[in-house]
Amino acid sequence: MADINSKLEVPVTTGPLPGSRKIHVAGTLFPDIRVAMREVVLEPSANEPPVRIYDTSGPYTDTSATIDIAAGLPPLRTAWIEARGDCERYPGREVKPEDNGIFGGKKQPDTPEFPHVNKMPWRAKNFGSGASAAVTQIAYARRGIITPEMEYVAIRENIGRAQREGLIRDGEDFGAEIPDYVTPEFVRSEIARGRAIIPSNINHPEAEPMAIGRNFLVKINANIGNSAVASSIAEEVEKMVWATRWGADNVMDLSTGRNIHNTREWILRNSPVPIGTVPIYQALEKVGGIAEDLNWEVYRDTLIEQAEQGVDYFTIHAGVRLAYVPMTANRVTGIVSRGGSILAKWCLSHHKENFLYTHFEEICEIMRAYDVSFSLGDGLRPGSIADANDRAQFAELETLGELTQIAWKHDCQVMIEGPGHVPMHKIKVNMTKQLETCGEAPFYTLGPLTTDIAPGYDHITSGIGAAMIGWFGCAMLCYVTPKEHLGLPDRDDVKVGVITYKLAAHAADLAKGHPAAQLRDDALSRARFDFRWRDQFNLSLDPETALKYHDETLPAEGAKVAHFCSMCGPKFCSMKITQDVRDYAAKQNTDAMLEAGMAEKSAEFRAKGGEIYLPAAE
Amino acid sequence: MADINSKLEVPVTTGPLPGSRKIHVAGTLFPDIRVAMREVVLEPSANEPPVRIYDTSGPYTDTSATIDIAAGLPPLRTAWIEARGDCERYPGREVKPEDNGIFGGKKQPDTPEFPHVNKMPWRAKNFGSGASAAVTQIAYARRGIITPEMEYVAIRENIGRAQREGLIRDGEDFGAEIPDYVTPEFVRSEIARGRAIIPSNINHPEAEPMAIGRNFLVKINANIGNSAVASSIAEEVEKMVWATRWGADNVMDLSTGRNIHNTREWILRNSPVPIGTVPIYQALEKVGGIAEDLNWEVYRDTLIEQAEQGVDYFTIHAGVRLAYVPMTANRVTGIVSRGGSILAKWCLSHHKENFLYTHFEEICEIMRAYDVSFSLGDGLRPGSIADANDRAQFAELETLGELTQIAWKHDCQVMIEGPGHVPMHKIKVNMTKQLETCGEAPFYTLGPLTTDIAPGYDHITSGIGAAMIGWFGCAMLCYVTPKEHLGLPDRDDVKVGVITYKLAAHAADLAKGHPAAQLRDDALSRARFDFRWRDQFNLSLDPETALKYHDETLPAEGAKVAHFCSMCGPKFCSMKITQDVRDYAAKQNTDAMLEAGMAEKSAEFRAKGGEIYLPAAE
Repeated sequence: MADINSKLEVPVTTGPLPGSRKIHVAGTLFPDIRVAMREVVLEPSANEPPVRIYDTSGPYTDTSATIDIAAGLPPLRTAWIEARGDCERYPGREVKPEDNGIFGGKKQPDTPEFPHVNKMPWRAKNFGSGASAAVTQIAYARRGIITPEMEYVAIRENIGRAQREGLIRDGEDFGAEIPDYVTPEFVRSEIARGRAIIPSNINHPEAEPMAIGRNFLVKINANIGNSAVASSIAEEVEKMVWATRWGADNVMDLSTGRNIHNTREWILRNSPVPIGTVPIYQALEKVGGIAEDLNWEVYRDTLIEQAEQGVDYFTIHAGVRLAYVPMTANRVTGIVSRGGSILAKWCLSHHKENFLYTHFEEICEIMRAYDVSFSLGDGLRPGSIADANDRAQFAELETLGELTQIAWKHDCQVMIEGPGHVPMHKIKVNMTKQLETCGEAPFYTLGPLTTDIAPGYDHITSGIGAAMIGWFGCAMLCYVTPKEHLGLPDRDDVKVGVITYKLAAHAADLAKGHPAAQLRDDALSRARFDFRWRDQFNLSLDPETALKYHDETLPAEGAKVAHFCSMCGPKFCSMKITQDVRDYAAKQNTDAMLEAGMAEKSAEFRAKGGEIYLPAAE
Repeated sequence: MADINSKLEVPVTTGPLPGSRKIHVAGTLFPDIRVAMREVVLEPSANEPPVRIYDTSGPYTDTSATIDIAAGLPPLRTAWIEARGDCERYPGREVKPEDNGIFGGKKQPDTPEFPHVNKMPWRAKNFGSGASAAVTQIAYARRGIITPEMEYVAIRENIGRAQREGLIRDGEDFGAEIPDYVTPEFVRSEIARGRAIIPSNINHPEAEPMAIGRNFLVKINANIGNSAVASSIAEEVEKMVWATRWGADNVMDLSTGRNIHNTREWILRNSPVPIGTVPIYQALEKVGGIAEDLNWEVYRDTLIEQAEQGVDYFTIHAGVRLAYVPMTANRVTGIVSRGGSILAKWCLSHHKENFLYTHFEEICEIMRAYDVSFSLGDGLRPGSIADANDRAQFAELETLGELTQIAWKHDCQVMIEGPGHVPMHKIKVNMTKQLETCGEAPFYTLGPLTTDIAPGYDHITSGIGAAMIGWFGCAMLCYVTPKEHLGLPDRDDVKVGVITYKLAAHAADLAKGHPAAQLRDDALSRARFDFRWRDQFNLSLDPETALKYHDETLPAEGAKVAHFCSMCGPKFCSMKITQDVRDYAAKQNTDAMLEAGMAEKSAEFRAKGGEIYLPAAE
């Protein structure tokens, strides 16, 4: 255990964001639900209530929580899972050396085991008997059951909607059906129709429920991965904590190589958000990195391994069919999806259909027994503007639509992954085709990048595409960092990627007309107009950077309450003039009222028959 | 002069971008034209010709040019202006102390005069007689004259189009009329119709002609301004050089306060791109910063002062009419345009119509005598999502449409400024209304910012809106830096702002279907696919940052030629698999040909009457 302690030297980031505090809202159907939110408290001069903000950061920003990553987060969903009575605990799969990338039976993993590994994971009763239950949110929803997860989501999605009096809907939603108010029943209905998912593996009870669907707020995903150099466990956990602190709704662990089983355990036990993986990466490690040596057994074993740990969704590239692979031959950038290329190589080597496609129903059996959601991978997504919307891409999408129906037949939750590199004029058709082909299952896209010429700025080239496709109906946006195509993102890159995607998702929410989305913009704009600098910073997506940039020009504390900024200086300020305008307008209204008064007198005069001039025609 | 030398310590940035060289293409109609372009030379293994790139950087990136900012750039247009014979030199206005913000006649400007101020500026002959000529590009165009400026623009806009064999047009241009090939006659026709402008003050002969119009490549503008602390002249010139190095097509000098006349002279004499200003800023300085004290005489004097120096376009807020001011009273953020609020204050104080509106025809007289283009300012643009597309904004736009017609009547070049803060779903109508209202005069927008909640990242919130409105038809995008709303941009902020807007403009060009826009994307994507790292960096908008990011993970020189990257490591690479795919596809084609061969034999067999089975119905 000395090893663990030495590895825990780097603490994870805790503490509230500036000006913010954690609050919890209780459920109605399920009174033990405590939905975490963030409240930004404004300056007294604002005379405004605190602004509530959707909060992905979990207990790490809660001053009343004790954080101990060796203990993990409290398993808030355990009682809900138990209460359903359709799961059972069983002796889990034994961890093998190759799960951590160790061969030959000699070396130990460099990373310690999580101290409290649950050796008795949950699983649907009667698994493997052919008569097992689906313990998925969609199964419950279809049976008319509202789960605590659904009410949690409803409360979370509603932030601000209750506050808003005289709600005016403004937006273009392209056929989405966003309600004025999100009821638990609405959540149930969306899940039942497959239009939304709540990624919620029964073995990840620490996660706070969240929904991915076109009629909910647009979500974002951040990718993390282990470093090539052995880093400490705390550093790996910190990547997840850091990404969720700034707003990542989901995190994908794309680690490869050694120690990934142990690292994933630490991440899951400490993650307040759903965790996704691409199991083929680990399966490939288990066969020594030789794609041809992959087989159903090792893949299936990996799915069980990760499902028992609590991974909430799996990217599964079952749409990379043998017949589609030659369609990529004349592409400028071929196959750029790592999973896609692994499977393409497998298909070609064996001249056989993709084994994920042929074993798809068996995969469904596993997914439904743990409520792991499908994220049907787009292994043939375009890697350049030249390859966007080509035959290979859309052929695969058709297959994903077919697989969606199969997954739904098995009561599995499903979302669909999308591109990639797409110029602006070709984005809309991606969304339209996905909705049509995949029966409105949630779309989850990587960007898309709207040009290839800006490596180093691909968070922005893709942020443009992400905002647009989010507006058109994409449910979750997978972030891209400034290092995309060039190297591994560091801490700052992750933050910039997350903030960029938060602003893109929010721009999409505004444009779709989410009823309360604009409350935060309005509160911030009022703060800006009133020179409440602290409020402006605290209401922003990144208060630290906003403050830092302000202070580079005007570091004095007094400037935070000054009625000017460095752009126009103290002598002249456009916003100060508006008070003059208001006074003037008030006076104009007075004039108008006086005039109206005279008109009244005049009407009175005429009513009394007192015309001076008679109308001509009478 | 010792003073000058001490101020020139900071050198401006010179030298080519990595992997690039300056080339010049001669004109056909005007053989003395030498259109500057940049060529990126690729690695020999690419077996591809150099990629030509639109180049805004002027002689600073030309290794054969001698740069001396005390001498200024060569006046490449002087002979063209002289040849037209409609201008004359005259003794220019004497510089007054207040031009540099000096009152009381005591202090000298902190900044030295440019050593070779032209005391005899150009002006249209017979100016002030009521019979002066318009020496504007639109006046020539309407008379059917193709100027050297127009051919320069045609050659510049055509980059890549001639190279492209079997041109396939792909894009959605929303009614733009982008030609396969840009002829000088096409440029003339667009200028004549007012659909494009070539900002080209006859007193700024150093500028390389460029066009702003919906049927040309989307352009970007960078704003610079003097620092509050007295900085050296070289630092001020460097801001312009730096912005154009990274791609600014135009630069606006928004300086206020002291020394602005002298500083502007240095900038103009050294600028290879058109320079714009907002003359009301300087006029306000001349009346001690009191908006109420502004008057036509001081404003007119400022227009003449700046026209003689060579400013290429003036932002003129003539649309802020008295009657519109009260429409802003209930806005969340009132009037946020500095010029707009100055004029609103003036209107309210005097309870009079905006003097820029009442004197508009007199302004036209000046503009046409120097070919200063109008940039009709949107003084009532929205400063928040809440205020987007409101009555005040569109009322002003109607007036700008009316003023466009008046300016055109006087043979003046005109573009129209636009917002501001606009959510995505309200962007398109801005473009549509502008085209309808302003007779297709070029639109020039600030962003728009698609959400208010991301101070510190407003280059991105606005880059999203800029890419979209550029696609819809906006001709020039005014950049926003990360410091917007917070402080003064530094050198890094300017670069980030310019690169963000270059990528947004390029994304728009791709989506509009500019015939050769995708050549650079394709060349970069091929380089990426071939692991030609150096080519990938050099073809990018910011080669230095791309290289730096790559080297943070893989600094070794060998990694620049390695067939892997830090994302997937040396063991596995998705792109390597594509060769297998190609081999496989080639084999499949062989199989298909064999099959086709058999089908041929079979057909031959049947043709000979050799059926084994007779068709059933026959």
